[in-house]
Amino acid sequence: MENIPFQQSSPRKNKTVASAGEEKIISIADNFFSKTIKTNVIKGIGDDAAVLSPPSNDFYQLVTIDSIVEGTHFTPSTLPEKIGWKAMAVNISDIAAMGGIPDIAVVSASLPKNLPIDFLNQLISGINSAAEKFNVAVVGGDTVGSDILSITVTLLGKVEKQYLCTRDGAKQGNVVAVTGLLGGSFKSDKHLTFMPRVEEARWLVKNAKPCAMMDLSDGLAMDSSRIAKASNVSIKLFFENLPVRPGFSIENALNDGEDFELLCVFSEKVLTEDIKKEFEEKFNLKLTVVGKTAPPPTGIFLNDKKIKTKSFNHFG
Amino acid sequence: MENIPFQQSSPRKNKTVASAGEEKIISIADNFFSKTIKTNVIKGIGDDAAVLSPPSNDFYQLVTIDSIVEGTHFTPSTLPEKIGWKAMAVNISDIAAMGGIPDIAVVSASLPKNLPIDFLNQLISGINSAAEKFNVAVVGGDTVGSDILSITVTLLGKVEKQYLCTRDGAKQGNVVAVTGLLGGSFKSDKHLTFMPRVEEARWLVKNAKPCAMMDLSDGLAMDSSRIAKASNVSIKLFFENLPVRPGFSIENALNDGEDFELLCVFSEKVLTEDIKKEFEEKFNLKLTVVGKTAPPPTGIFLNDKKIKTKSFNHFG
Repeated sequence: MENIPFQQSSPRKNKTVASAGEEKIISIADNFFSKTIKTNVIKGIGDDAAVLSPPSNDFYQLVTIDSIVEGTHFTPSTLPEKIGWKAMAVNISDIAAMGGIPDIAVVSASLPKNLPIDFLNQLISGINSAAEKFNVAVVGGDTVGSDILSITVTLLGKVEKQYLCTRDGAKQGNVVAVTGLLGGSFKSDKHLTFMPRVEEARWLVKNAKPCAMMDLSDGLAMDSSRIAKASNVSIKLFFENLPVRPGFSIENALNDGEDFELLCVFSEKVLTEDIKKEFEEKFNLKLTVVGKTAPPPTGIFLNDKKIKTKSFNHFG
Repeated sequence: MENIPFQQSSPRKNKTVASAGEEKIISIADNFFSKTIKTNVIKGIGDDAAVLSPPSNDFYQLVTIDSIVEGTHFTPSTLPEKIGWKAMAVNISDIAAMGGIPDIAVVSASLPKNLPIDFLNQLISGINSAAEKFNVAVVGGDTVGSDILSITVTLLGKVEKQYLCTRDGAKQGNVVAVTGLLGGSFKSDKHLTFMPRVEEARWLVKNAKPCAMMDLSDGLAMDSSRIAKASNVSIKLFFENLPVRPGFSIENALNDGEDFELLCVFSEKVLTEDIKKEFEEKFNLKLTVVGKTAPPPTGIFLNDKKIKTKSFNHFG
């Protein structure tokens, strides 16, 4: 995995968030996050709302929200720094998928009363690690008591108007590609420690102008079907091309959730061997052509067999 | 109370969110919220992030996040439309407190698997009612399975630079005022059905230039102490002036949470009887001078007795 400096200490059971109180929690968060503040932040944590200078007229603003919840996105034994990293990273991945630059975050944490304050410190440290790594300023938040630990992050980003990349731009005859390896994200712990593909996506929108792009959160089959539907094309995936993570199956590569790789659609003539090679050498990361777009009706085919798209159902 | 058109039907126990699935939930939300979209929304629900035209350079952007959780902010018997209204309204109140205009929201909902789909419909309808009332476009969201119902809203707002009003501008010799009646918000159901003071705050920043402003969420005593601390003044509240909600006590007015009224500090010469009268007639709402600012050290006094500030502790 990528090199994230998590401390491997387990949280000690001493002071809890309930005994520390809300003001103490805010001061811990403020202490971490005040380091992330940058020039477009007029006022961060400590008022009814944060105050920002909006991006210039050359940019679109991007906004995304994602929650991670104990029992669904992590387990009671997940290290708190990894929970924090994931909470921020899943949102950064969404901004990357639009071709954008992560910018400003607010965080809401639902915390069990008996949560040790050490655990909270490490959780916030994990959020902060991802924020610092991707130059995100955390400008505000909210904490509430709850029986279940969950973290919600809203992330604002920005993208130069000419680089915006949505899901609905794929045309017939395009090629479909993915970064990295697919499948087994839960078993391999990748879902907790992945590095959002911000630099990679920025390079692609500047050098290979994807027609459509998204991040893989619900599996290649399901997420391909989303691009297919938004763009009104079908997508033919090639069985033999899938970059399956060693130790996992084609089925895993198609249907496992939370790969957080980029799924991109390119004009065939743009995605030359040279461009692919340049990308792979620059980022030490595979960029694999996994399929082609074809005429509607919308649907996903594996070689020539139509496949039913299954997704990770949070309510299943 | 204000006239909010809640339906009084209780949710029927039939189809659940688990049997409907995530795509169905998104389509219900999209159906409600697509009506709220406005010209600064380039792309709403349906991509990795929403795409917005940022406000012009004459504005600051405001961002706030607030979660409401079953058991803390509402009970299992609270009507779902009221839960939805509150989830949006608490955030609108934060933008109002900065002198701002609510603009764009994203919503994350943690939903128990067995939640009836009718309940969800009414919940979203409540969120939508508040969004429509205050011209907020809901542009994206996230749903996750959880044992406890909770809703997190992030709201973006904007404010003309000259109208921004923060907590830290109070000076010695200012007067302290509140809108409406204080205390008993939980018992009277006001905390679920309150009307955020957006128009009132906009009028005040244009006509009476508050030196400091915030919304009352943790009680007059606690929230006054926040303005006092941010502004480095003390605040003397006058026992006899407090606008106590009929049926409640001075203690309630000082310490009950979730009044969601405006707490404002004005230069004495600006808040004339004429201005107060104009405000009260225009909005049919009391604007009561409840105290004065005085030299530091920071602290809250009731008449001349220093009071210990207690707040509603979510972890208590």
